[in-house]
Amino acid sequence: MPLAICLKSRPEGEASVDNFEVKQLPDAAPGDGDVLIATRYISVDPYLRGRMNDGESYVAPFALGKPIESGAVGEVISSSHPAFTAGDIVSGHLPWQDRVVAQSNSERLRSLQQIDTDGVSMTAYLGILGMPGQTAWVGLSGIGKPKEGETVFVSAASGAVGSTVGQIARQLGCRVVGAAGSDDKVAYVVEELGFDGAFNYRTETDLDAALTRLCPDGIDINYENVGGPVSDAVFRQLNTHARMIVCGLISRYETGQMASGPPLMPVLVKSIRIQGFIVSNYPELCDEWKRVGASWLRQGKLKYRESIVDGLENAPAALMDVLAGRNFGKHLVRV
Amino acid sequence: MPLAICLKSRPEGEASVDNFEVKQLPDAAPGDGDVLIATRYISVDPYLRGRMNDGESYVAPFALGKPIESGAVGEVISSSHPAFTAGDIVSGHLPWQDRVVAQSNSERLRSLQQIDTDGVSMTAYLGILGMPGQTAWVGLSGIGKPKEGETVFVSAASGAVGSTVGQIARQLGCRVVGAAGSDDKVAYVVEELGFDGAFNYRTETDLDAALTRLCPDGIDINYENVGGPVSDAVFRQLNTHARMIVCGLISRYETGQMASGPPLMPVLVKSIRIQGFIVSNYPELCDEWKRVGASWLRQGKLKYRESIVDGLENAPAALMDVLAGRNFGKHLVRV
Repeated sequence: MPLAICLKSRPEGEASVDNFEVKQLPDAAPGDGDVLIATRYISVDPYLRGRMNDGESYVAPFALGKPIESGAVGEVISSSHPAFTAGDIVSGHLPWQDRVVAQSNSERLRSLQQIDTDGVSMTAYLGILGMPGQTAWVGLSGIGKPKEGETVFVSAASGAVGSTVGQIARQLGCRVVGAAGSDDKVAYVVEELGFDGAFNYRTETDLDAALTRLCPDGIDINYENVGGPVSDAVFRQLNTHARMIVCGLISRYETGQMASGPPLMPVLVKSIRIQGFIVSNYPELCDEWKRVGASWLRQGKLKYRESIVDGLENAPAALMDVLAGRNFGKHLVRV
Repeated sequence: MPLAICLKSRPEGEASVDNFEVKQLPDAAPGDGDVLIATRYISVDPYLRGRMNDGESYVAPFALGKPIESGAVGEVISSSHPAFTAGDIVSGHLPWQDRVVAQSNSERLRSLQQIDTDGVSMTAYLGILGMPGQTAWVGLSGIGKPKEGETVFVSAASGAVGSTVGQIARQLGCRVVGAAGSDDKVAYVVEELGFDGAFNYRTETDLDAALTRLCPDGIDINYENVGGPVSDAVFRQLNTHARMIVCGLISRYETGQMASGPPLMPVLVKSIRIQGFIVSNYPELCDEWKRVGASWLRQGKLKYRESIVDGLENAPAALMDVLAGRNFGKHLVRV
């Protein structure tokens, strides 16, 4: 009988592991055209927090009593669908279960893709080549349109999205500066990933001074993952024609959802563009990244770090870690 | 001796006519390659308020003791420049003086263009075909990129920019709703200009209800000229993929310059784009509008209204009128 992590209750204020429950689901026998998958890794991403709430958003809320869903990779156990065979390694959008049936003609089945693990770890398809990496590419390249020599700032710089944003920006000839939540993370993005500078936003007492020091020519692109005081300080350093790419606002997911944004007068005077985006609206750019990213990865031009938690039952705690910034790199659960 | 309106002092808080002084300038004899112009009309625009302040902006501040400058039309009195002849009607960027020398090789001379007054009033080149009309076209067409059937909202709807924005949007097949500062202005934009709806922002007590009533399908483009409570209410009605074009923030020119802006969470969730722009950065689109606008004007597809104040010495009071919304249509001073 498959084990599942389900949404037990919606958070009032901060989310906690008590909002989840482990359930034993009845065995579902795969029917004609169905694919049975053993889940190997599930992806734990900040945006899942939004789906725990009810109410309008860009993705439907999780249903109470039903499994959480996210990106995942798994192995095909059996298949009567012509496109899949037992032994295939697939990525897709799967429920938090150890075994899953993808029914013929379902959204779930349509989300499945065989992945090429030749020289690339299967977990890369949840991180740097998966949704977080695609998000970095779509936002920076497609929305931000960086020019060589420009300065790019990225918050949550050591995270799955931020670390990819920084490395893409470097590949495109930009200066890259980031903020991260520990000295280790700061050292990692500068020494391992080649950022031109970074600071620890938890201990930095003068954000404006840090930014002026690290971004002497101002900031042309702010790739925003977090919101809050760092974002406000970055806004003050934006140059004429700067772009603020609103990818995430993790600091506001729990509270302060309607906190007001940056002042409009500089938007007017400096011709600033502020733009939100949803990665799933840019399928061509996502495919482009799968090609570009895999090629750069095989050439050793991209690095990534993972923090892997063992055991499906620990997935709720893993999500809490991500929301609190306690992970370091792409956070995954090994099922 | 030419008469000039000069900046006497920079405003502390609200601007007033006391910040200006009338000066008699020494006669400047035109030299070789110079053009002598008799100013006929000067344009009085909200953005001039920003130039009265010191400090960084997209155009240099006016110098203390020197004449204010703005768009103007005039007649060439004498010229030793090959491109101009006595009797030419020209538009350009001129000081607030009754007579002006445009020196050979100066910025001022480069700003001069002969205008075609066949079937079009010379004052149109300060309004619907001039900077305000170009601003409407660049912002709506170039930045907003409206699609047929979308809903466009515009504040300061009866103003020189807003009235053109609304009429362009109608020509492009959009639904157009606006806010204006008097019942007369509301009636004008609906009955004369063909807006689909409008309300008086000074007397409307429930902005959200008014917008829901007038924009039943939400708002796809907010062409922002004003800022403040109407802007905040419009932001709440924005649809997914909406664009907020920040053209002006007249409600914040005097005070509240750093008032915070709309919340970022809806920007993220609805993939909203907020973008400021400066019309002078889009010369090709400006030229496009001169052609498109003149053609529409001659075909009777565009209407405009002017409020004309007589006498150069009344220009400061005319600017105060514009900033307080006491004008109705494009505000001009006849010299």
